[in-house]
Amino acid sequence: MAPTITAFERSPDRGKGLARDMRVRWALEEVGVAYDVRLLPFEAMKRHAHLALHPFGQIPTYEEDDLVLFESGAIVLHLAQRHAGLLPKDADARARAISWMFAALNTMEPPIIERGMAYLFEREKPWYAERMPMLEQRVDVRLAQLSARLGDAGWLDGTFSAGDLMMVSVLLRLGSSRPLDAYPNLAAYVARGEARPAYGRAFADQLAVFTGTPAPGQA
Amino acid sequence: MAPTITAFERSPDRGKGLARDMRVRWALEEVGVAYDVRLLPFEAMKRHAHLALHPFGQIPTYEEDDLVLFESGAIVLHLAQRHAGLLPKDADARARAISWMFAALNTMEPPIIERGMAYLFEREKPWYAERMPMLEQRVDVRLAQLSARLGDAGWLDGTFSAGDLMMVSVLLRLGSSRPLDAYPNLAAYVARGEARPAYGRAFADQLAVFTGTPAPGQA
Repeated sequence: MAPTITAFERSPDRGKGLARDMRVRWALEEVGVAYDVRLLPFEAMKRHAHLALHPFGQIPTYEEDDLVLFESGAIVLHLAQRHAGLLPKDADARARAISWMFAALNTMEPPIIERGMAYLFEREKPWYAERMPMLEQRVDVRLAQLSARLGDAGWLDGTFSAGDLMMVSVLLRLGSSRPLDAYPNLAAYVARGEARPAYGRAFADQLAVFTGTPAPGQA
Repeated sequence: MAPTITAFERSPDRGKGLARDMRVRWALEEVGVAYDVRLLPFEAMKRHAHLALHPFGQIPTYEEDDLVLFESGAIVLHLAQRHAGLLPKDADARARAISWMFAALNTMEPPIIERGMAYLFEREKPWYAERMPMLEQRVDVRLAQLSARLGDAGWLDGTFSAGDLMMVSVLLRLGSSRPLDAYPNLAAYVARGEARPAYGRAFADQLAVFTGTPAPGQA
């Protein structure tokens, strides 16, 4: 049976591919696993039936036979460990690729999310103008370090891996805003990720949910 | 050769075990792997020699023969996958335990860190009193969900795993502050983690770095 993931019935980003189901869709496309999607309205997220799958009431979840997983990082890692295409064969190189997954989620994403949350929820507050430069600075420190490590390489550690998939996904949350402008190699890195056919198929599928138009190639 | 980890020469938490080397020390003790520690002064963290090991200039790193890893989550997972004691044998149960590692690091830790950062860096700011309840609320939502899922169980999914190690480590960052008081099952869960002999040995070793006194059992 094909695995089933959950996604927003109506994504708050209006189909820009920033919801976390996109990371899992992209991974599924990279490893060539067909999947089903169960769409959830917001009011269903905190109901018992969904909390039984995801203790924090979020998307995505992943169901495969009797296995239920939550957390996009864990789902992508599960797919990467069971199918070829997202982790190198060499054991040391695999471990390093997994380091980059954790770096994306635990070092890079938190300041990016924090900056986004401030913009969403505190833009009208009197302290916004004073706090925002501090939040931008926290993001910039990480971008500068990532840019220095990436250098002229195409991907973070040899061939494309789940570490790159997760890092590109996290950097995409910066949107078209300024932070990446100072780092042409990071902007090119993100564009390289977006140019992958698997990314394109995943993006079209999540956009089709928002527009209500089937993605190209779907009946 | 024993692996080598890096840790702060002088931890900013004064030996309370909140620095991220503690998670790796705890995992090493759980799986029974002896290790060496290289202590780093703050001024060495952003130098080229350390950035070559850790692109974000943090601790811990992990060196084992030719393998260099960074990110405590990745290091703990590496140890858990290569040694018995931190992941169940059943493949589905292993994947679920790894879900809890990612949940600890990507869902639970960010709001806890954010609350801590506000206390450290914005306590004197005029907006602190108005923002703090919002930050407390973000932490509390996650604690309530975690408490509901844990219920009367001893650990998050069957036997103790790397998922519990990481979740207890993250909850410990709340310190002795109020948030856990409302959730006696979570307070007991954290105490259960701290009571493990492996935790005790790791804690004593990191404290000994701060006090300059060898831990019990060390020469």
